Amino acid sequence: MSGIKTTGQKRLVLVSGRAHPALSAEIAEELGVELVPTDARTFANGELYARFDESVRGCDAFVIQSHTAPINEWLMEQLIIVDALKRASAKRITVVAPFYPYARQDKKGRGREPISARLVADLFKAAGAHRIMSVDLHAAQIQGFFDGPVDHLFAMPVLLERFQQILDPSTLTVVSPDMGRVRVADIWSEKLGAPLAIIHKRRDPLVPNQVSVHEIVGDVSGRVCLLVDDLIDTGRTIAKAAEALKNAGATGVVVAATHAVFSDPATELLQSEFIDRVVVTDTLPLPEEKRWDRLEVLPIAPLIARAIHEVFDDGSVTSMFDGAA
Amino acid sequence: MSGIKTTGQKRLVLVSGRAHPALSAEIAEELGVELVPTDARTFANGELYARFDESVRGCDAFVIQSHTAPINEWLMEQLIIVDALKRASAKRITVVAPFYPYARQDKKGRGREPISARLVADLFKAAGAHRIMSVDLHAAQIQGFFDGPVDHLFAMPVLLERFQQILDPSTLTVVSPDMGRVRVADIWSEKLGAPLAIIHKRRDPLVPNQVSVHEIVGDVSGRVCLLVDDLIDTGRTIAKAAEALKNAGATGVVVAATHAVFSDPATELLQSEFIDRVVVTDTLPLPEEKRWDRLEVLPIAPLIARAIHEVFDDGSVTSMFDGAA
Amino acid sequence: MSGIKTTGQKRLVLVSGRAHPALSAEIAEELGVELVPTDARTFANGELYARFDESVRGCDAFVIQSHTAPINEWLMEQLIIVDALKRASAKRITVVAPFYPYARQDKKGRGREPISARLVADLFKAAGAHRIMSVDLHAAQIQGFFDGPVDHLFAMPVLLERFQQILDPSTLTVVSPDMGRVRVADIWSEKLGAPLAIIHKRRDPLVPNQVSVHEIVGDVSGRVCLLVDDLIDTGRTIAKAAEALKNAGATGVVVAATHAVFSDPATELLQSEFIDRVVVTDTLPLPEEKRWDRLEVLPIAPLIARAIHEVFDDGSVTSMFDGAA
Amino acid sequence: MSGIKTTGQKRLVLVSGRAHPALSAEIAEELGVELVPTDARTFANGELYARFDESVRGCDAFVIQSHTAPINEWLMEQLIIVDALKRASAKRITVVAPFYPYARQDKKGRGREPISARLVADLFKAAGAHRIMSVDLHAAQIQGFFDGPVDHLFAMPVLLERFQQILDPSTLTVVSPDMGRVRVADIWSEKLGAPLAIIHKRRDPLVPNQVSVHEIVGDVSGRVCLLVDDLIDTGRTIAKAAEALKNAGATGVVVAATHAVFSDPATELLQSEFIDRVVVTDTLPLPEEKRWDRLEVLPIAPLIARAIHEVFDDGSVTSMFDGAA
Amino acid sequence: MSGIKTTGQKRLVLVSGRAHPALSAEIAEELGVELVPTDARTFANGELYARFDESVRGCDAFVIQSHTAPINEWLMEQLIIVDALKRASAKRITVVAPFYPYARQDKKGRGREPISARLVADLFKAAGAHRIMSVDLHAAQIQGFFDGPVDHLFAMPVLLERFQQILDPSTLTVVSPDMGRVRVADIWSEKLGAPLAIIHKRRDPLVPNQVSVHEIVGDVSGRVCLLVDDLIDTGRTIAKAAEALKNAGATGVVVAATHAVFSDPATELLQSEFIDRVVVTDTLPLPEEKRWDRLEVLPIAPLIARAIHEVFDDGSVTSMFDGAA
Amino acid sequence: MSGIKTTGQKRLVLVSGRAHPALSAEIAEELGVELVPTDARTFANGELYARFDESVRGCDAFVIQSHTAPINEWLMEQLIIVDALKRASAKRITVVAPFYPYARQDKKGRGREPISARLVADLFKAAGAHRIMSVDLHAAQIQGFFDGPVDHLFAMPVLLERFQQILDPSTLTVVSPDMGRVRVADIWSEKLGAPLAIIHKRRDPLVPNQVSVHEIVGDVSGRVCLLVDDLIDTGRTIAKAAEALKNAGATGVVVAATHAVFSDPATELLQSEFIDRVVVTDTLPLPEEKRWDRLEVLPIAPLIARAIHEVFDDGSVTSMFDGAA
Repeated sequence: MSGIKTTGQKRLVLVSGRAHPALSAEIAEELGVELVPTDARTFANGELYARFDESVRGCDAFVIQSHTAPINEWLMEQLIIVDALKRASAKRITVVAPFYPYARQDKKGRGREPISARLVADLFKAAGAHRIMSVDLHAAQIQGFFDGPVDHLFAMPVLLERFQQILDPSTLTVVSPDMGRVRVADIWSEKLGAPLAIIHKRRDPLVPNQVSVHEIVGDVSGRVCLLVDDLIDTGRTIAKAAEALKNAGATGVVVAATHAVFSDPATELLQSEFIDRVVVTDTLPLPEEKRWDRLEVLPIAPLIARAIHEVFDDGSVTSMFDGAA
Repeated sequence: MSGIKTTGQKRLVLVSGRAHPALSAEIAEELGVELVPTDARTFANGELYARFDESVRGCDAFVIQSHTAPINEWLMEQLIIVDALKRASAKRITVVAPFYPYARQDKKGRGREPISARLVADLFKAAGAHRIMSVDLHAAQIQGFFDGPVDHLFAMPVLLERFQQILDPSTLTVVSPDMGRVRVADIWSEKLGAPLAIIHKRRDPLVPNQVSVHEIVGDVSGRVCLLVDDLIDTGRTIAKAAEALKNAGATGVVVAATHAVFSDPATELLQSEFIDRVVVTDTLPLPEEKRWDRLEVLPIAPLIARAIHEVFDDGSVTSMFDGAA
Repeated sequence: MSGIKTTGQKRLVLVSGRAHPALSAEIAEELGVELVPTDARTFANGELYARFDESVRGCDAFVIQSHTAPINEWLMEQLIIVDALKRASAKRITVVAPFYPYARQDKKGRGREPISARLVADLFKAAGAHRIMSVDLHAAQIQGFFDGPVDHLFAMPVLLERFQQILDPSTLTVVSPDMGRVRVADIWSEKLGAPLAIIHKRRDPLVPNQVSVHEIVGDVSGRVCLLVDDLIDTGRTIAKAAEALKNAGATGVVVAATHAVFSDPATELLQSEFIDRVVVTDTLPLPEEKRWDRLEVLPIAPLIARAIHEVFDDGSVTSMFDGAA
Repeated sequence: MSGIKTTGQKRLVLVSGRAHPALSAEIAEELGVELVPTDARTFANGELYARFDESVRGCDAFVIQSHTAPINEWLMEQLIIVDALKRASAKRITVVAPFYPYARQDKKGRGREPISARLVADLFKAAGAHRIMSVDLHAAQIQGFFDGPVDHLFAMPVLLERFQQILDPSTLTVVSPDMGRVRVADIWSEKLGAPLAIIHKRRDPLVPNQVSVHEIVGDVSGRVCLLVDDLIDTGRTIAKAAEALKNAGATGVVVAATHAVFSDPATELLQSEFIDRVVVTDTLPLPEEKRWDRLEVLPIAPLIARAIHEVFDDGSVTSMFDGAA
Repeated sequence: MSGIKTTGQKRLVLVSGRAHPALSAEIAEELGVELVPTDARTFANGELYARFDESVRGCDAFVIQSHTAPINEWLMEQLIIVDALKRASAKRITVVAPFYPYARQDKKGRGREPISARLVADLFKAAGAHRIMSVDLHAAQIQGFFDGPVDHLFAMPVLLERFQQILDPSTLTVVSPDMGRVRVADIWSEKLGAPLAIIHKRRDPLVPNQVSVHEIVGDVSGRVCLLVDDLIDTGRTIAKAAEALKNAGATGVVVAATHAVFSDPATELLQSEFIDRVVVTDTLPLPEEKRWDRLEVLPIAPLIARAIHEVFDDGSVTSMFDGAA
Repeated sequence: MSGIKTTGQKRLVLVSGRAHPALSAEIAEELGVELVPTDARTFANGELYARFDESVRGCDAFVIQSHTAPINEWLMEQLIIVDALKRASAKRITVVAPFYPYARQDKKGRGREPISARLVADLFKAAGAHRIMSVDLHAAQIQGFFDGPVDHLFAMPVLLERFQQILDPSTLTVVSPDMGRVRVADIWSEKLGAPLAIIHKRRDPLVPNQVSVHEIVGDVSGRVCLLVDDLIDTGRTIAKAAEALKNAGATGVVVAATHAVFSDPATELLQSEFIDRVVVTDTLPLPEEKRWDRLEVLPIAPLIARAIHEVFDDGSVTSMFDGAA
């Protein structure tokens, strides 16, 4: 038969955007590889540019970017990197977005709104991405926004292991900071075998024009409360919830979240006297000025590195979380 | 300038599948039009067929189908009708699916699952649909599954108007039948100015191997409880919730839901002594044998007809629900 | 150079829908593999579900489904399985549809009809299928409906081998049951070196309002007639043809077809005294109550298994039929 | 409400390729419009070019091209015109291809063949065509190759009207020149109320290595035979069929076909003494040197013009052929 | 015939991003319309949001955004607005990008580079844009990057009219600041009937390791030099060119450019003593601190407004520039 | 785990169109492979056909075609071959088009023009091509027309090596034949370390109605002039430029170009007394009657063969040109 025959090979490469170099470096180290040397830069007028210094032909490429502020810069940089990989004949391109950008704009709450989380999925597709890997999507339905495989990782094993070291389950109550995050709290309650409470904002129907009150549904007096959420942005909801819990007799308030967005004034609010400890992961970069003594940042790189290896190796990402979610 | 010039015209046509002819007829009547005469049938081997008896060239076509059992038959029939419209040069094709099929399969809960709600959106797109209209999507994120406009209608105004006639808000508590539907209950609570309670299934951590218990979070003793959900399928969750509420001292239990799926044994379970009244809409057909005296079925046709008219007329569907959702 | 390099591997997996488990099992056995353990089921309201119990990452997946009644159920199940494979990162997905669904709706015979056979190809594509494998397409043009490779297998070698055992070519006449299947009969005539006859339905122009008559074009008196078609649905055409042939002096009537759709009342009609033997393959399941003594069912699994192996192995499917079609 | 509102208008324009200017001119005349002035030309190296001399923004454009030799030139010219229309903001683009190019390559007869008829549909789509209009497709399934509406016109009313003037049905037999065109002959037989005969090429199984013989199935002695086909290419099949018919006692042989491809040596063969008359339409240009006294060419422009008008006007093309096909 | 028929209407709406509100306001004023009231904002973590306060169903929408720094913010905002329009059932969406973002990344100059200008076109398409309107694309080939109509406007008539007021053609020489912009200068030379000169950077082959020199090809002594370019970014090339021209005896140096990107240190460099006057348009916003006395900013709004009107009205954009480009 | 596992293999195959068999044969020889035996032919009516005589399943296929006149034939043949490869399950298909067809129609120079170079990219994509390989694109932006990787090769190393053998750089001036090719000349000037001159066609503004003159910008007297261009079509521009250079005192005129289109009357014009030597490559076939003694044709096959090998082997095409372009 005509032609040349050789044994097929596959090659994993890691490409990194500039948003969170420490995370990319840790993932690379966990995998025992070097990041692809990349010339990424910003021109005077704000346009971005990226070029790889070695061939990526036929590679199985993973493009790591952390979508912190300025979030649109980093999104665009990742799109440009994906475009460059596509045109450089990479075989498969996986977008690694530990914190999925625009995840909260996942539906039209009102008419004439965008669904930006779907738009982001479409932009990744248009640029040339074949797959997406992300951690703790704000809504699991976002998996369905992308026309291709989405590896949905859960930080819970990482966080859970830490809480099992530092908290006594028998004195613990899991608390949802509002009605929208009840499902997340429900899973924590199940995993820790701890009761659940919910904080509910409501107008009092008997008192006209009254502002909404924070009522606590469930029993928190004398309990250590674990406030859980997938992300903390400005910290307002969490801070108010913590105050309400302490006022209701909670003996401690501990906060767990995967994504530390920490927009202003989160850093200030979370140092409130009502909050004893905050535990997050480093899916987003946290500079020194956004850290304080009662904040604990757990590394997410081992989880992502293991998932990348499973994907490259045709192993199983699902099996990483058996019993976890 | 060369060519023929004429004033553009637009023509609305309604096409109906065979799943729920009464609903289509009512929508047509509300709009003051005839349904497009259609020859739809099932061949001996189960293959479906549809053909229109008059031209639909250049039309703004709305294809009404109700996704009741056998749900895959009716889905396939709607896809075939859309294909026929596309090939017959309809200008715009809107799928009207009052109850969105496979809405509950909206994410990968575990690895290696389909996301069938996204698949359905892709199938509609592949067949040639430009738009989707649906009522009370199980998850609002399903809007983002379709690559085009989705008109998301809310049955709440219809249901709310009825409850304001028959219930006294001051004695009412809105109850979510489980943790997953808290958001729906939250909206009802807000609209009716009534307090909220939640039913929570949980293992007791202190008793090993114990089955889960239904604990009621919130105050229901001496209250009329309004159990709300977007859909009722087998009725098991609702029936158990009603029993728990009555046992906890509720003086009445009323159930509201948009979609009466009523798979077996729903009809039997919902006639439980613990349930005083069930109010649903007719987004799905309800034959006589699935109706009983304490079931009230409100017509959804006026809402859909009005929305179709707004869409055809470039009006505003959003304005139909101002203040409603 | 940065990255991890390993030798590429490929893995064939077989996934089966629930329509015809015996066929899938036989194909698996022929290939010497296990079917991927799959949890496929139907929910109370008729929605379907499927999930694989082991990883399918990077696999070359073949999804076997037989499109028997209820045909739309099985089609939808196959689409859902394809979607699940896509989202589970299967590398290549081949739909194996031994009897292509809706194959007879392959054109607009009249205005405003669907072309459902094309729609089916589009649905497979939308779900994520890369390839299709099918046996004896009703029209070979259906290959062109799919935007990708179609492996078109022919059952003729299987059927032919059997007839060469049981019939004497020198007494044989190949008969087309109507004008539309003449091409199929032509190929059989060529292969067997037997003369051809055709049954033609026609109004007699000389007699007004007369119903159509079955006229036999060609010589059948004293001959054993082999009536051939790609599929038998209700059996009406075949039964009438057999009667006409016997009436015209045929000494025997034997029927050959690939696809035994056997919609009612096929089983009854085909047991007619005018038909001596019917030989089909098992591309579609045939329960005991649809079998009788003069029906012979040949196994199609060896043919499909061999084709799957050629596809997986980058061999040649074409070479399987050299000289056959 | 903000914005400018005006009454919508629509404008039909006809654009013509250079293959068959007479046909385009006649269609324009039938419709009472001018063709869009177009600068179409061929550069020295064979590259084509086209530009419109007036605005076509927002137009409903019909691009007429006849796919005669050099067929690839004219196909490419039509694609370029479609591209230019798309980029010039035409609203809707319909490819008018009276003779669909590559129609006979509609399936993979053997492995590793192209399906060029599908490729052509894909090329039209890629260039920007929304619709296709064609006359007497070689296989009706080609409608399903295009992802959009196909207006399939039939020349039969045009041809039939002529034959009803010149032939006496009572002495007529319709003849299919080979097994592959039986369906076409069947329709003519039905329309004319005339009996059918078929010419069958077959090896004689009793004589080893014998070449195939032309056997006539059906009665032609003393009859006027109407040989029908959708197209005549080199004329070999028709010429041999005519000879066989006359040898079998036919008193006359008349030939009807829609598309006069007339590749060499068709013109010579069709002037055979065995053929009394040939009637075709002018879907393809026929220069003087390809015409002779017993050839009759019927104009197809009125049919196409009427169909274009129905499409533009959202009328019905189907109704043009009620009872015809 | 069934259905409702009404006369079609079309409605032009203007939507504006937040990058250059003055330009959008002027375009709206020129057209005599209000901008669609839009709630566009930036959330604390940098995510953007946009929602329209009135219905845009069925509209012909033009989305005006100016791609100044921070360019990725404004690009993303425009994509989000397009997504919102698509989901709100706008009929046609035209992206108005007076300065096309990433226009200079229009090819792979070296291996493994992105082609970001194509990526941008793909992102607009993915979001839902049907058309693009832009002014003086850096390379005309960018028109071919978008799969749809691109209205390419030329600022030359605006600039030319001004120069004809202030300069005497008989003393003028048109100068290209480097080899890459010779084509632009060529057109100006033709329009003004003025001779051409070019500034060429080159290593002197006779002097090893020497840096490149600016050599002036053509006669500039005693002439007023008009330096032309499509855009001025940091101003370095222009400033050096002006110095070289004055040193070579030019009596005046005037600069013309369409797009005043003016990244640092452009404002400083362009105030050089060697430059007598700079004339640009306001396709990009120029805050007070980036303006000086010898800078003249011509309004581009009338040109864009006229083009939008032609597009909406199915007129001719081409005719706006007859004889101009 | 279920399934069959084997080591993956990859197989390179070369397929050739019929336009330039010598080139394909040389590339195959350089690579040490046979061309895939292919039955390519033209039917009587001008339709093309291609079929492979051996399996190409799973192959990495390179389809070599040279786009010489009749250019549309060869383009269509290549599209048909790509379609056949796609349907025969080739794994990856690379179009090798040494001279990219329609490259000069890369923008809308005026309104209502096609962008045929983009159309060609879309046609390749529609047929099923994954990649394109080409030499010296007329505009580098054409890379951005294709939605996938484009390997852009440069003939400069081949040409340069030859000129370094035959010319003395110290006496050389590089000349651009018009303003549009200045960039190409600029690169040559840089590579050879030679000065640059440009030929500029211009109307004299002082003399009304005067035809344009060829003015030479730069110093050519007493120099050997190297006229460079990417392609030579009719040769008119080059011939006039050569005459002007010799008239201006050039001591020699040598012409270098990659693509020898040589449409009439190129062969005649280029044998002008003003041209001392013409050096081209054989990206296009040059029959004996288009060759003369002062024409030198360099083989391009080694370059293309090496690039194909790098692509197949996941090597680096970029590295082939380090320092070259």
